Amino acid sequence: MPVTAPDPARRPLGTLLESTLAAITPADSTALAAAADRQQHLTKPPGSLGALEDVSVRLAGLAGLCPPPLPEPAAVAVFAADHGVIAQGVSPWPQEVTVQMVANFLAGGAAVNAFASQTGARVVVVDVGVAGPVPEPTAGQGTLLRRRVRPGTADLSVEAAMSRDEAVQALEVGIEIAGCLVAEGNRCLLTGDMGIANTTASTALIAVFTGAEVDDATGCGGGLDEPGRVRKAEVIRRALALHRPDPADPVGVLAAVGGLEHAAIAGLVLGAAAHRVPVILDGVIAGAAALVAAALAPHCRDACVAGHRSVERGHTLALSRLGLDPLVDLGLRLGEGTGALLALPLVQASVRALREMATFDSAGVASRTD
Amino acid sequence: MPVTAPDPARRPLGTLLESTLAAITPADSTALAAAADRQQHLTKPPGSLGALEDVSVRLAGLAGLCPPPLPEPAAVAVFAADHGVIAQGVSPWPQEVTVQMVANFLAGGAAVNAFASQTGARVVVVDVGVAGPVPEPTAGQGTLLRRRVRPGTADLSVEAAMSRDEAVQALEVGIEIAGCLVAEGNRCLLTGDMGIANTTASTALIAVFTGAEVDDATGCGGGLDEPGRVRKAEVIRRALALHRPDPADPVGVLAAVGGLEHAAIAGLVLGAAAHRVPVILDGVIAGAAALVAAALAPHCRDACVAGHRSVERGHTLALSRLGLDPLVDLGLRLGEGTGALLALPLVQASVRALREMATFDSAGVASRTD
Repeated sequence: MPVTAPDPARRPLGTLLESTLAAITPADSTALAAAADRQQHLTKPPGSLGALEDVSVRLAGLAGLCPPPLPEPAAVAVFAADHGVIAQGVSPWPQEVTVQMVANFLAGGAAVNAFASQTGARVVVVDVGVAGPVPEPTAGQGTLLRRRVRPGTADLSVEAAMSRDEAVQALEVGIEIAGCLVAEGNRCLLTGDMGIANTTASTALIAVFTGAEVDDATGCGGGLDEPGRVRKAEVIRRALALHRPDPADPVGVLAAVGGLEHAAIAGLVLGAAAHRVPVILDGVIAGAAALVAAALAPHCRDACVAGHRSVERGHTLALSRLGLDPLVDLGLRLGEGTGALLALPLVQASVRALREMATFDSAGVASRTD
Repeated sequence: MPVTAPDPARRPLGTLLESTLAAITPADSTALAAAADRQQHLTKPPGSLGALEDVSVRLAGLAGLCPPPLPEPAAVAVFAADHGVIAQGVSPWPQEVTVQMVANFLAGGAAVNAFASQTGARVVVVDVGVAGPVPEPTAGQGTLLRRRVRPGTADLSVEAAMSRDEAVQALEVGIEIAGCLVAEGNRCLLTGDMGIANTTASTALIAVFTGAEVDDATGCGGGLDEPGRVRKAEVIRRALALHRPDPADPVGVLAAVGGLEHAAIAGLVLGAAAHRVPVILDGVIAGAAALVAAALAPHCRDACVAGHRSVERGHTLALSRLGLDPLVDLGLRLGEGTGALLALPLVQASVRALREMATFDSAGVASRTD
């Protein structure tokens, strides 16, 4: 397994986070303008590739190059963690499903594996906070990175989910994984997640950063019925009343009501942005994490592509706040990175068009007659 | 070029069409039920893959197998033809762009080429009715199949676009191409088109088969302004008043107001359905053609996947009439097969999930606690 991260313990906590935030700068306006102009000269009616034209232009701005490099190879980092708030009955699934699904990812039997096979993306599973023991993968299985910050969060409805130091540590896990994946040659990162009850923490984060009413942001997660959803919203309301998290203090919000995978995904987003490599966001967990990342470094949004729109209702609020339009909208609510993987070929196609299409001049195609 | 079709002149005209229509039978209810049941046992919350679950179930019904075969390799057939109605000023683009874009497809410089490269699909360009001479591709260029039925249609606003025999001939070109592509090993076909002014014929077909008001079905095509769109609608209204096409006579409708590429695409859809191979429909031209195909053989819809929703307004009317939900909705309005190619990895991913995912039992993942 070639992902070899420097031991975070050798760095003072927060150093990597600070240097990463400092490295995130705005999109390159020259490359943005060049890409927008190039789209006008390719052999198609201007604008006829719709939202994909915008994606290609944004990626040119991120790379500071027109056309930008192809976003491949790609890797999806699936951050797994558990949630103490499971004790409040917020999920119809038992907590052991998190570790069982990690084993399923490593064995290649999950949806994320099927979709990654389809797109040629690499799957890396990161234990950033699973509660139980995760067995070593056997020969031929997938990649497991052990970066556990703590064995699951505390119950956010009765105490802080984690300490500030733990939140920073988990953020730095994500940054570090981004750095390793880019160093390995990946030119597109995708977010993935696994964690029973993680839509509860997501919803709390979204409510804090968007100002939305908790009920408007609370969905059915892994399959709650309506009474279950209402109870989940009540748990979240209680947590917010207890912690009164301040959106101006993103690390504090993470510590109070976040999850370890949310922190790590926020770190992955920040790391990708610092490396000027695009990151395709999966669903509601990624949306919540990206709100944390954007609160820490607003320009990280230039690196983000919204892979899909989850049916989990808080996701649309998060995307709207981030100013991102999702590429795929097919009623998915699975997570793992599945929605991001579906969007990957669309993102790649958008860049290929900008890189490979002829212009009206080069192809000798006539212009409009009007 | 290994596509070697039997000489259609050796068969009585219409024989291939008749035998193809006779070969189109309903989806297999046993495979449909088995696939729907399997989706309930895969390691994910039931329903969490949204519309992709439906796609995988439909393809199982089409194949008569659960899980169905992977829809790959895939090939997009780009049918090119011209339209006499260009004389009425219905397009801002000159007619020579059709042949110039055919050359661009063969040289690999068009959007369809970029998107096909991304997905590994083969591109086959079929001249089913281009008005001008199409030069022979040079070594290393793409595949051109010469199946010209006539050099463009007549002006449908003043006379029939083509004869009934020509409509049948063009339908049989599409059937024949489907057969050749399946014989070559392709397990997914995609529709593509090129033809300046072909949204005019598409709109006329859609108005006939859906009963929609012409104005509601008429869009801006390759980039008309609003006065241009209104003039285009008036041309279509005149044509419908002249021919009074009867939707119960699909070949008659094609002959009166269709295009040669519409007929060929309808044939491709029928051929795919007869071979029980899925066909991903591109935009409004494919939608109009699929209405013709469905009028000839309603069960051919079981083979159809709607690749995307075009911004061309008649497309939504066509999809609604066909009962198909598009997979991609990104504001595209280019044609060529681009929207179908974007959907291809989504269709493939849907089948991979059904084929490759573990079940709760096989993976040892716990069930819900409620």
